[in-house]
Amino acid sequence: VETRPDPGRERRKGAPEIIFGETKETAQIIEMAQSLLASTGRAIISRLPPQSLVPLQEAFRAYAVSIREPSRSMVIYSPDYVRKSTGGHIGVISAGTSDIPVAEEAAIIAEEMGCRVTCIYDVGVAGLHRLMRPLHDLISDDVDAIIVAAGMDGALPSVVAGLAPVPVIGLPTSVGYGMGGKGVAALLSMLQTCAPGLSVVNIDNGVGAGITAALIANRVAQAREHQSQ
Amino acid sequence: VETRPDPGRERRKGAPEIIFGETKETAQIIEMAQSLLASTGRAIISRLPPQSLVPLQEAFRAYAVSIREPSRSMVIYSPDYVRKSTGGHIGVISAGTSDIPVAEEAAIIAEEMGCRVTCIYDVGVAGLHRLMRPLHDLISDDVDAIIVAAGMDGALPSVVAGLAPVPVIGLPTSVGYGMGGKGVAALLSMLQTCAPGLSVVNIDNGVGAGITAALIANRVAQAREHQSQ
Amino acid sequence: VETRPDPGRERRKGAPEIIFGETKETAQIIEMAQSLLASTGRAIISRLPPQSLVPLQEAFRAYAVSIREPSRSMVIYSPDYVRKSTGGHIGVISAGTSDIPVAEEAAIIAEEMGCRVTCIYDVGVAGLHRLMRPLHDLISDDVDAIIVAAGMDGALPSVVAGLAPVPVIGLPTSVGYGMGGKGVAALLSMLQTCAPGLSVVNIDNGVGAGITAALIANRVAQAREHQSQ
Amino acid sequence: VETRPDPGRERRKGAPEIIFGETKETAQIIEMAQSLLASTGRAIISRLPPQSLVPLQEAFRAYAVSIREPSRSMVIYSPDYVRKSTGGHIGVISAGTSDIPVAEEAAIIAEEMGCRVTCIYDVGVAGLHRLMRPLHDLISDDVDAIIVAAGMDGALPSVVAGLAPVPVIGLPTSVGYGMGGKGVAALLSMLQTCAPGLSVVNIDNGVGAGITAALIANRVAQAREHQSQ
Amino acid sequence: VETRPDPGRERRKGAPEIIFGETKETAQIIEMAQSLLASTGRAIISRLPPQSLVPLQEAFRAYAVSIREPSRSMVIYSPDYVRKSTGGHIGVISAGTSDIPVAEEAAIIAEEMGCRVTCIYDVGVAGLHRLMRPLHDLISDDVDAIIVAAGMDGALPSVVAGLAPVPVIGLPTSVGYGMGGKGVAALLSMLQTCAPGLSVVNIDNGVGAGITAALIANRVAQAREHQSQ
Amino acid sequence: VETRPDPGRERRKGAPEIIFGETKETAQIIEMAQSLLASTGRAIISRLPPQSLVPLQEAFRAYAVSIREPSRSMVIYSPDYVRKSTGGHIGVISAGTSDIPVAEEAAIIAEEMGCRVTCIYDVGVAGLHRLMRPLHDLISDDVDAIIVAAGMDGALPSVVAGLAPVPVIGLPTSVGYGMGGKGVAALLSMLQTCAPGLSVVNIDNGVGAGITAALIANRVAQAREHQSQ
Amino acid sequence: VETRPDPGRERRKGAPEIIFGETKETAQIIEMAQSLLASTGRAIISRLPPQSLVPLQEAFRAYAVSIREPSRSMVIYSPDYVRKSTGGHIGVISAGTSDIPVAEEAAIIAEEMGCRVTCIYDVGVAGLHRLMRPLHDLISDDVDAIIVAAGMDGALPSVVAGLAPVPVIGLPTSVGYGMGGKGVAALLSMLQTCAPGLSVVNIDNGVGAGITAALIANRVAQAREHQSQ
Amino acid sequence: VETRPDPGRERRKGAPEIIFGETKETAQIIEMAQSLLASTGRAIISRLPPQSLVPLQEAFRAYAVSIREPSRSMVIYSPDYVRKSTGGHIGVISAGTSDIPVAEEAAIIAEEMGCRVTCIYDVGVAGLHRLMRPLHDLISDDVDAIIVAAGMDGALPSVVAGLAPVPVIGLPTSVGYGMGGKGVAALLSMLQTCAPGLSVVNIDNGVGAGITAALIANRVAQAREHQSQ
Ligand SMILES: Nc1ncnc2c1ncn2[C@@H]1O[C@H](COP(=O)(O)O)[C@@H](O)[C@H]1O
Ligand SMILES: Nc1ncnc2c1ncn2[C@@H]1O[C@H](COP(=O)(O)O)[C@@H](O)[C@H]1O
Ligand SMILES: Nc1ncnc2c1ncn2[C@@H]1O[C@H](COP(=O)(O)O)[C@@H](O)[C@H]1O
Ligand SMILES: Nc1ncnc2c1ncn2[C@@H]1O[C@H](COP(=O)(O)O)[C@@H](O)[C@H]1O
Ligand SMILES: [Mg+2]
Ligand SMILES: [Mg+2]
Ligand SMILES: [Mg+2]
Ligand SMILES: [Mg+2]
Ligand SMILES: [Mg+2]
Ligand SMILES: [Mg+2]
Ligand SMILES: [Mg+2]
Ligand SMILES: [Mg+2]
Repeated sequence: VETRPDPGRERRKGAPEIIFGETKETAQIIEMAQSLLASTGRAIISRLPPQSLVPLQEAFRAYAVSIREPSRSMVIYSPDYVRKSTGGHIGVISAGTSDIPVAEEAAIIAEEMGCRVTCIYDVGVAGLHRLMRPLHDLISDDVDAIIVAAGMDGALPSVVAGLAPVPVIGLPTSVGYGMGGKGVAALLSMLQTCAPGLSVVNIDNGVGAGITAALIANRVAQAREHQSQ
Repeated sequence: VETRPDPGRERRKGAPEIIFGETKETAQIIEMAQSLLASTGRAIISRLPPQSLVPLQEAFRAYAVSIREPSRSMVIYSPDYVRKSTGGHIGVISAGTSDIPVAEEAAIIAEEMGCRVTCIYDVGVAGLHRLMRPLHDLISDDVDAIIVAAGMDGALPSVVAGLAPVPVIGLPTSVGYGMGGKGVAALLSMLQTCAPGLSVVNIDNGVGAGITAALIANRVAQAREHQSQ
Repeated sequence: VETRPDPGRERRKGAPEIIFGETKETAQIIEMAQSLLASTGRAIISRLPPQSLVPLQEAFRAYAVSIREPSRSMVIYSPDYVRKSTGGHIGVISAGTSDIPVAEEAAIIAEEMGCRVTCIYDVGVAGLHRLMRPLHDLISDDVDAIIVAAGMDGALPSVVAGLAPVPVIGLPTSVGYGMGGKGVAALLSMLQTCAPGLSVVNIDNGVGAGITAALIANRVAQAREHQSQ
Repeated sequence: VETRPDPGRERRKGAPEIIFGETKETAQIIEMAQSLLASTGRAIISRLPPQSLVPLQEAFRAYAVSIREPSRSMVIYSPDYVRKSTGGHIGVISAGTSDIPVAEEAAIIAEEMGCRVTCIYDVGVAGLHRLMRPLHDLISDDVDAIIVAAGMDGALPSVVAGLAPVPVIGLPTSVGYGMGGKGVAALLSMLQTCAPGLSVVNIDNGVGAGITAALIANRVAQAREHQSQ
Repeated sequence: VETRPDPGRERRKGAPEIIFGETKETAQIIEMAQSLLASTGRAIISRLPPQSLVPLQEAFRAYAVSIREPSRSMVIYSPDYVRKSTGGHIGVISAGTSDIPVAEEAAIIAEEMGCRVTCIYDVGVAGLHRLMRPLHDLISDDVDAIIVAAGMDGALPSVVAGLAPVPVIGLPTSVGYGMGGKGVAALLSMLQTCAPGLSVVNIDNGVGAGITAALIANRVAQAREHQSQ
Repeated sequence: VETRPDPGRERRKGAPEIIFGETKETAQIIEMAQSLLASTGRAIISRLPPQSLVPLQEAFRAYAVSIREPSRSMVIYSPDYVRKSTGGHIGVISAGTSDIPVAEEAAIIAEEMGCRVTCIYDVGVAGLHRLMRPLHDLISDDVDAIIVAAGMDGALPSVVAGLAPVPVIGLPTSVGYGMGGKGVAALLSMLQTCAPGLSVVNIDNGVGAGITAALIANRVAQAREHQSQ
Repeated sequence: VETRPDPGRERRKGAPEIIFGETKETAQIIEMAQSLLASTGRAIISRLPPQSLVPLQEAFRAYAVSIREPSRSMVIYSPDYVRKSTGGHIGVISAGTSDIPVAEEAAIIAEEMGCRVTCIYDVGVAGLHRLMRPLHDLISDDVDAIIVAAGMDGALPSVVAGLAPVPVIGLPTSVGYGMGGKGVAALLSMLQTCAPGLSVVNIDNGVGAGITAALIANRVAQAREHQSQ
Repeated sequence: VETRPDPGRERRKGAPEIIFGETKETAQIIEMAQSLLASTGRAIISRLPPQSLVPLQEAFRAYAVSIREPSRSMVIYSPDYVRKSTGGHIGVISAGTSDIPVAEEAAIIAEEMGCRVTCIYDVGVAGLHRLMRPLHDLISDDVDAIIVAAGMDGALPSVVAGLAPVPVIGLPTSVGYGMGGKGVAALLSMLQTCAPGLSVVNIDNGVGAGITAALIANRVAQAREHQSQ
């Protein structure tokens, strides 16, 4: 069965094709990565199955391979690939330590789309004092959009959206057990937010959050760019 | 069909019988109220149907009748009834203005159980600065338990439970539309709280929250009482 | 019971306070609107109950009142109020005619936040040929963000996000009956999108979509602005 | 415990009995397959458990065994079995690569029921341009019914049903994570379709989609047949 | 706000545009009906709001108006409109009397698409003996597809699909109370059918069932037609 | 941690205590079984974890041990235990082969409560002709209550309850995948039955169905008994 | 549209046909009642719409009409109709006063099936002492089956099933608000019972509970009868 | 990735930081435990993954390590750590044996917060007589709050809250299969309680129940303390 990665997506959409590793065989992933490397010079893989990790490293020994644990993401670069830098600036905030893998997935995508990314982790509502200072700094540092990853009660994105004058993207994570667990309460609470300017992506969809934030930041950066010319 | 209000509940449980008005005919409510007035000197009615309001006022013209809008609650006292005062202190906080009717229902029950009640309304997470000062004052004023009513995102109870060193009772309200609306997201977010010491009651159950908080406060007050003797 | 509209929100957040009319008495709405007019020169009301319409028109006869049917929204301006114009550009697309009231709610908010808004209505997936031309024009006209309102199958936002190189905000509407009706299937389908750069708000939350899109567009416009200076 | 495969089903219903492998022991499957081979000359097994694969190949070494990965389906033929060819024509389209196993399950059943099957895979809404040409060819080639397999947003079947003048069968697949994942959003979106002439089967039920499409195509083919005589 | 009924749908899809009355103002419906009458000579309206009935009859006094109670459907014909007759044959079966309005909605659409329709009502599983004879006659009369409408337990479509050698379309109705009520159990039971060749449409979607069945029957009829020439 | 099996239950309730094996350690099960053997001469274990099977056989080598595959149930008898025979008669019907393990669990309990049990398996609605004869025989043989086990569509219990003049107990099984899978559609369809005299137990609760049916049959048998004296 | 009440049901099933009033026009109900009166001498109507009450009384002025408020049920007898008396004995227990209408519906059906019915109302778990004495008397009075109606927490049926040595039928009622309201928690709690011998019917299905209990009691009574001959 | 355990929580909230083991690597847990030991002299770990048990024992060989099976909790003390004793008294009741692990988790936390804890296990509603005596003793022994752990039907907390004059905390456990299984029915039944003074925490959240109960008891004890001085 053949696969069709979409090399034209970056040009068309401003966002690269990303290989969704989870439901694929190692051989399929390798084939798709080779195809993308040939056409675009880079292959990004998300939700890489653990058992595919070593075979992929073997297969792409001749390439620069970047693995960012604990996000289960991998990026492979052709020797001559130069990642662009757009000037966009993204903040990525996590409520707990368990939300970090998903937060990192978002951060990686935003970086691959050329953004500068500032991460602030483990500052959830059980101890809000930890949030205030770094959030203030982030805003002062002219952040273009903020991603807030949270599981369990999902309260942090609403708190941040009540404070920061930029678009906030709620990123629920599948952390939590019992009723409303696995991110359901977090997602619903974000959808029900009473704070202005919070939009959401699905549970654990770091890729979607990263692309959205980067599309925003890159558009702003492009306008800024024109300005400085 | 006969009704059986339970006059012994206050003695047995420390919480009075309360007439749940919603599914009852006006005649049934009057009959039950008369029975409770005869045995305990007071009748408390919650979720009173609008059409029963005037007939009840008529029927109990000879009594002291207290109606606390917008909570749909009514309390009727025998002429010689003296409400006890236990010395317990309860805080009732609401996130939005729409949560006030349910918050008031809780406050009324706690007062009828002899507690002093301090209310702080409309201090939700879209503007957290409004919360800090009055919450600090409440804690300094030796509050025994805090009820936090919130609909929509339900984030405020988790924030309060992260800050206050007393038992917090989350009271979700049926405010909000769309997915997770009618209090569902609020309840789930409270159940998933990552803050310590937050327990919950069902959506719009101001009665349940009021009784729980008052049972706590009265027990503390009783111990305090013994002390001051 | 007192109400506390938040006049500082526009300065703090870049988005104005909006009076949520649905659960409020007419008198409460009038009071809040007067307070906001006094402090900011404008009052925006969403989800206005039909029975409040005439009393509000009466109450604000001395003001410029803008009512945009069928969105159930009203904006009241002080005589000397001048709406700012930021230079941001938003597209609002609807799948069916039944989605227009919610789409209009989003458009109004974005306009009140100073954006130019282009609307394209009734171009759903049952006849995709209707979408192609106006979407192409919209992109050529340098749109900063696109809101796509859709009920029932909710397929249109994914189609648009697959074609347009700007952030897309999915706005599910409560149109549809049977299983997945009232916007549930639409919201879930948008959350599950396989197209890049689509974030969502809750069902019928035109206000949330409008604020998010305008925050994006205004940030881009501000950068553009600096450039043209 | 005895099993009762139904050899008369093909004659009675026009659709063969199919052994549902998932919840059966290897021995049970072998016994049922032998029984069907004896009575009808063919045994079709769906959702074959991986551990049953080799034992079944061993057991039926003397037969023609067709295994079509990645669908987990197996067909065993008696040496003298000749598959009929009805002249019916079915299209099977998949949105993503992950939907292919379920799409293949449908294709196999339709082929075993005598249809010609044309497959078009990986043409989802994130890149609709890939769909247009092959869909046009399929319609020109007088297809009698089209099955569209899609997970995640489930938007493709509505798009196809908006374009093709034949019955479309939506086949949701259990692809996707988070809220509405495992095919739920896809199924609901198909049920809520605003395109005409789309009916659905349950998530991952390739067998049901294949039988339905083949019943349609075979009835049309039979009428055509009569014509050409 | 303008409306865009799609007159080309019949030519493109083989199924006519149908005005969904439920969420529309009377004036909107009249305008759309006039537009369709002008272009195609016929306007079909489903789920007509009761209050629109008389105004519509008034507005189209000069036309042939067919109202088929209890289905809430209306068809308006230009004086010179001649409904085609394709030769397709559809069966419509209902389990209970409460399912008849939805069954009738399906029957009307199939008739407007040129099919002959045979109805068998009130033959549910509480008395299966009532089904056997008329079902047998229907099959003998060369029916091309059968729609089975059922609420509550939704068992009848599976029974019919186990007996009839033609495609069966399950049409769940919103009949039933308690858990699984309003058609949910019926729909789920049909999706879980263990009988071959049953596909489904959403709860109360008589329009969808009618179009699907008629598309099948008309394709068969067209092949038959060619034959008889 | 100590366990407290309830030896008095049979005397008090007419139904024996049953050890729920699923969530227990092997050592706990052995200890509880020994306790019940000592007090009542018999120990019944349901949902025995596979890994506990051999250790339990070892531990009770000196006893009569009855294991009835595929139900995951075990009964251990003291050497001198004599099972009573009440004269009650139960029918147990299953729709598919996959429902047999749960049906068997019900049969075992009814036998241990002294009933005669007649089993009819694999007679679901995809081939109703298989049901008619044995059901007729069962009724002629004076059955006191009938248990019908079904997964997937859950249609068979409604069909049987429409035909048999005795109480029918619907026993949904966790067979089926996709929406409404794992027994959900089956349970809901049974709850929504339009046939008279069908009550239900939870999914896979063969124990509950067996006890209910045996309580009915034993009460009838006892009345019969008195008669024959 | 014609209706087909089933006069043979009582003979075939031992339970009479019952007209489900809720979704029917008054004229339809009258027609069906007339048909049943003609064939069986009695017509039973459940869930009678309030607006049909007076017209029905008018229509059947010449008959004995029994209306049992608050159950929304009506029974009409031919002048010469004599209700049989089987000797079966049913208990009907309700947890609260709000559950009484549904409990009464069950009681009426059991009486019409010839049983003696003993009712015990308003004895829920908030005051279990009220239950013990009357339950003990009921068991001593040789009750054959017990129906327990409960909304909200649904705990009472499990308590009764833990105490009474006869089959218990759980009858959840749609009493309760918030999460798990409208009978959902009650039904689920009954399905999850850890007490032996409890089967359930759907929420508010008093008819189903009454028929099931009466089928049990009548079968026992019949055996008793034979005995006394 | 760094972790930030919150040593100041006990001082600020009166409840210690607890390491949530479930989603953490062994190395992370060790690091967090070391940090807490250094700052507070004690580390509490809940939901410890089985594979982390031995490495943790190794790592903290020099400390006093308390493991309380079957709760999956571990407490590590510095050699000189002295646990405070507040004088608060908590009762922990479980319905079944399967609920004990969660009940124990609650008991451990309450003890670590200085309370005396009395446990009463396996006294569910299938045999209520077992409950009465020990519950009476508990109340006589001046218990300050009672936790009731129950899965399946979740009926016991309502029964206890109907009898005991102290705050009751419902602790649903994930015991039970089928619809409403894994604690869902138990939680909903508790939320729907008709008994006064019952608040709840999420399914399996022994930590939350323990902290809430201990906050109550410690506040009472502190008042008592002052008294005795
Ligand atoms: N239609 C709407 N949907 C969602 N949020 C809204 C809407 N209209 C206003 N709001 C927000 O909800 C808040 C109203 O809360 P309150 O009036 O205190 O109940 C306002 O401050 C707005 O930010
Ligand atoms: N993959 C499948 N999905 C749905 N139904 C199936 C599948 N494979 C077989 N079946 C049907 O399910 C029935 C299997 O029932 P049984 O083998 O008795 O449990 C067969 O008669 C087939 O008609
Ligand atoms: N398979 C089963 N399904 C439902 N209930 C059961 C089952 N097996 C045993 N039981 C009941 O559940 C109780 C077991 O509770 P425990 O062992 O204390 O957790 C027993 O007393 C039985 O009455
Ligand atoms: N078993 C548990 N259930 C619920 N919350 C817990 C549990 N154990 C620890 N916690 C809380 O959850 C927080 C852990 O968050 P983190 O370790 O940052 O993911 C701690 O601060 C505790 O307050
Ligand atoms: Mg943390
Ligand atoms: Mg407010
Ligand atoms: Mg349209
Ligand atoms: Mg692809
Ligand atoms: Mg009927
Ligand atoms: Mg079978
Ligand atoms: Mg009561
Ligand atoms: Mg036990």
